Amino acid sequence: MYKTDLEIAQEAKLLKIDKVAEKIGIEEDDLEYYGKYKAKLNLDLLKKNQDKKDGKLILVTAINPTKAGEGKSTTTVGLGDGLNRLGKKTVIALREPSLGPVFGLKGGAAGGGYAQVVPMEDLNLHFTGDMHAITTANNLISACIDNHIHQGNELNLDIERITWKRCLDMNDRTLRQIEVGLGPKANGVERKDGFNITVASEVMAVLCLSTSLMDLKERLSNMLIGYNLEGKPVFVKDLKIEGALAMIMKDAIKPNLVQTLENNPAIVHGGPFANIAHGCNSILATKLALKLGDYVVTEAGFGADLGAEKFLDIKCRFGNLKPSAVVIVATIRALKQHGGIEFENLKEENVQAMLDGCANLAKHIDTVKQFKLPYIVAINEFATDTQAEVEALQAWCREQGHPMSLSQVWAKGGEGALDLAQQLVGICEQENEFAPLYDVNESIEAKIERIAKCVYGADGVDFTEEAAEQIKIYNELGWNKTPICMAKCQTSLTDNAKIYGAPKGFRITVRELRPSIGAGFIVALTGNVMTMPGLPKHPAALDMDIDEDGHIVGLF
Amino acid sequence: MYKTDLEIAQEAKLLKIDKVAEKIGIEEDDLEYYGKYKAKLNLDLLKKNQDKKDGKLILVTAINPTKAGEGKSTTTVGLGDGLNRLGKKTVIALREPSLGPVFGLKGGAAGGGYAQVVPMEDLNLHFTGDMHAITTANNLISACIDNHIHQGNELNLDIERITWKRCLDMNDRTLRQIEVGLGPKANGVERKDGFNITVASEVMAVLCLSTSLMDLKERLSNMLIGYNLEGKPVFVKDLKIEGALAMIMKDAIKPNLVQTLENNPAIVHGGPFANIAHGCNSILATKLALKLGDYVVTEAGFGADLGAEKFLDIKCRFGNLKPSAVVIVATIRALKQHGGIEFENLKEENVQAMLDGCANLAKHIDTVKQFKLPYIVAINEFATDTQAEVEALQAWCREQGHPMSLSQVWAKGGEGALDLAQQLVGICEQENEFAPLYDVNESIEAKIERIAKCVYGADGVDFTEEAAEQIKIYNELGWNKTPICMAKCQTSLTDNAKIYGAPKGFRITVRELRPSIGAGFIVALTGNVMTMPGLPKHPAALDMDIDEDGHIVGLF
Repeated sequence: MYKTDLEIAQEAKLLKIDKVAEKIGIEEDDLEYYGKYKAKLNLDLLKKNQDKKDGKLILVTAINPTKAGEGKSTTTVGLGDGLNRLGKKTVIALREPSLGPVFGLKGGAAGGGYAQVVPMEDLNLHFTGDMHAITTANNLISACIDNHIHQGNELNLDIERITWKRCLDMNDRTLRQIEVGLGPKANGVERKDGFNITVASEVMAVLCLSTSLMDLKERLSNMLIGYNLEGKPVFVKDLKIEGALAMIMKDAIKPNLVQTLENNPAIVHGGPFANIAHGCNSILATKLALKLGDYVVTEAGFGADLGAEKFLDIKCRFGNLKPSAVVIVATIRALKQHGGIEFENLKEENVQAMLDGCANLAKHIDTVKQFKLPYIVAINEFATDTQAEVEALQAWCREQGHPMSLSQVWAKGGEGALDLAQQLVGICEQENEFAPLYDVNESIEAKIERIAKCVYGADGVDFTEEAAEQIKIYNELGWNKTPICMAKCQTSLTDNAKIYGAPKGFRITVRELRPSIGAGFIVALTGNVMTMPGLPKHPAALDMDIDEDGHIVGLF
Repeated sequence: MYKTDLEIAQEAKLLKIDKVAEKIGIEEDDLEYYGKYKAKLNLDLLKKNQDKKDGKLILVTAINPTKAGEGKSTTTVGLGDGLNRLGKKTVIALREPSLGPVFGLKGGAAGGGYAQVVPMEDLNLHFTGDMHAITTANNLISACIDNHIHQGNELNLDIERITWKRCLDMNDRTLRQIEVGLGPKANGVERKDGFNITVASEVMAVLCLSTSLMDLKERLSNMLIGYNLEGKPVFVKDLKIEGALAMIMKDAIKPNLVQTLENNPAIVHGGPFANIAHGCNSILATKLALKLGDYVVTEAGFGADLGAEKFLDIKCRFGNLKPSAVVIVATIRALKQHGGIEFENLKEENVQAMLDGCANLAKHIDTVKQFKLPYIVAINEFATDTQAEVEALQAWCREQGHPMSLSQVWAKGGEGALDLAQQLVGICEQENEFAPLYDVNESIEAKIERIAKCVYGADGVDFTEEAAEQIKIYNELGWNKTPICMAKCQTSLTDNAKIYGAPKGFRITVRELRPSIGAGFIVALTGNVMTMPGLPKHPAALDMDIDEDGHIVGLF
């Protein structure tokens, strides 16, 4: 039978991390080791390399995935290895896994098969502590808010309008809505609160969008915590703890270097969850990778409707980044789901369902075209794909005139992406007219409507009364000139997770708008998307174990 | 003016950590670097050194401190440097700071003045992530408990009797008593809960008392989470997540190596808070230090009534450790407080108040004698001490026949502890008849009474109705043959924080007993001691800052 991802990862022959760093010209002095195979990178590297020309930026996105994920990270890693095999100096730039899904349904998130980033166990556990630093910073804000109120509330904070929430890097639905400060007066003031998962914390967004430690501090200081009794907004800077917060984040802001199974450099930094967060790796990591490599392969989470849209409209805008090409990952499995097949039956051959599902792929291609970027479809091969299905999909791409490559990285590593890599080298030579989808000066409603219509294919957007009221307030406060960070379910182009394919004639409901003033965007929550996931009936944690030699099983 | 601890630490000339390791015979292969100046130590080192004779173990304890702390860690570090100056191969074994007090009142906890452990900033922030791993493990248990109930509650858990609490490494009083699972059914089951500070988590106690990774897993599996509807206890092993928990702790279990300002090795591992936890560094760290050094200087938190009692009755019992000597740290400041002076006025000379306060010192000396251990009083000199005060205290010690040394480590580093070190070398040569204070087979009431009478000087113990009921249950469940972990305020020998000196004619009230079945003891909560602290009106966090070069201020 097939080996598990973990077994393959455990058999890998790793280079010591200084040898990996050497490949892209990083000297030992700019490394901070975390064990033998992980290191943080000194931010001075950006200054040291400022005169170097940037490499080409390749974004990997996908169609709407099944709940199992469809191999976007795997493709990113394999493509990076493929480009390196072609002799192109390539750096991979990925996001850090969150512990929540690791113990929940999804398991690890560092690629799969023979296209993985290692050391897999560390990446999927505490890694270099970035998530924990974010959790700590986020919760110090909460502790200081409640302490401030308890100690006399000089800022006159309205306890009914504290918008800042606590967080944990855990799937824990029971913490979504809580009441704190119960019991005697010494336990502080009673109020309603809740926890987000850490990756949904604004601190994560700030980390990912900052361009320096001082920029980080400035953004942290501008995070909204709530309103006072006069209805005026109150910020972190009013609590005077931005210095402490930046200090907590002093190491977290440094990008992390690891390697692929083929010993190529991978910079892993910043947060996942492109459904509820903006979900990109950090601007600092991407910028650094562009200085160190001639090609940079990066990913944005879930389908192009979520990760890519936010990558292009938020991250590229803030970071002044210009991608050279987009890879759209499609799998036969997910296409069959979009063609009407149930998740349990995706292993069975069904050419017609797959072809029906291509409507979803076509919509995402259309989205990428609207950003005026060249693209290629990567068919990420699964062991269950049949020859008839693969050939039919290839034929569809040819008929529609879409550049396409069969990617076999799961089974073959970089070797399986040689054709994809070769084609991309050519595509990257094309000039492109990349532009974000909307102007930030449009109204909040107009920007959301633009995304819903152009990217999701919706007829329009409905705003709940609460959302409409919020927009009114934000307009008055001058918070309407920012990009929008859409929070939406990932399995569908609509805001209803069960509707597959490329539906038409639907509308999107925006139920709440959360201002992330420090990060610099407004989060629009659609449908019933949650910022704190839950665990499934049989959490992955139940199957994990470690023996006396430290050998791990069950982290898949 | 004087330099701050942080300024002194920042001026230190650090050795790269492999050079420090070399001094005690550790090869690079057994180090896992965390940056240039921190490393985790491979547990195999214990096996590799198993035939080596153990060094001498010196415990540093103190009188009841003021709220500012009285320099126990400082003395421990300075004494270690002093012994090394005498040419004695000495390893220091300390506890890890908790982030809660760092942002609260106390600031850092890595010694002070010229007797510090460095890198100070890292030690006091995330260090090597051990606390975060404990927080994660603790909260995965909570998430799995609530998920189990939400998904059908096969174990029949009684939601009114879940004893396991969530935790955060934060001073956050508002989380002491909360209600979780509010809102729609999808948010899980509503119930009362609360957060402890991470160091008070049983996971911390388990980490500190484990002798191997497999012992850790076994202890984690035996942690009580609550009772089912038939009143039977339910454990972590019933949730089947002990493998995942041990995996989360795979790095945290490895002791951490850093250095003193004088470049001597310091192993820093395991938890503080000897008021609410057992508050010792880990058995693994101490055992390893004993193999690597001819002398090991370690500390136990707060006064001898708390840290030392638990060090000797719990840690030494479980770890089969035999101390060679005890250092009792006393300061003129704290003695004056015990003699009736207010905290604000402790800088003013007052010989009589100091002599009156010596009753507190005498009681702690008496306690150490009951454990049949030789001791020495270390007078930890402060800049505000007057010559008259110091001479009066020295005279008192001589009159009472107590070995004594004036320790000037804050101002002079190891140089300031040469006399103390020299005397200890002699004391360590004495044979001693060390024995714990009680037999674990005595009843719970008898053990607590023994501690209260012998160590605190109380007339007896009152058990609340709740506590009495709990004892009945634990007796029935066979949980009564374990040591007791007393939770008590640290500033007083009584359970009332404001009563100084060496009071007589008082009783101790035990209000609750918490079984830590995995750790192997029962926690007895006295007075109004809390397992989640709060922040003061002006938290230390407000004065912290970091500049663009990463230079930190306000971490004192």
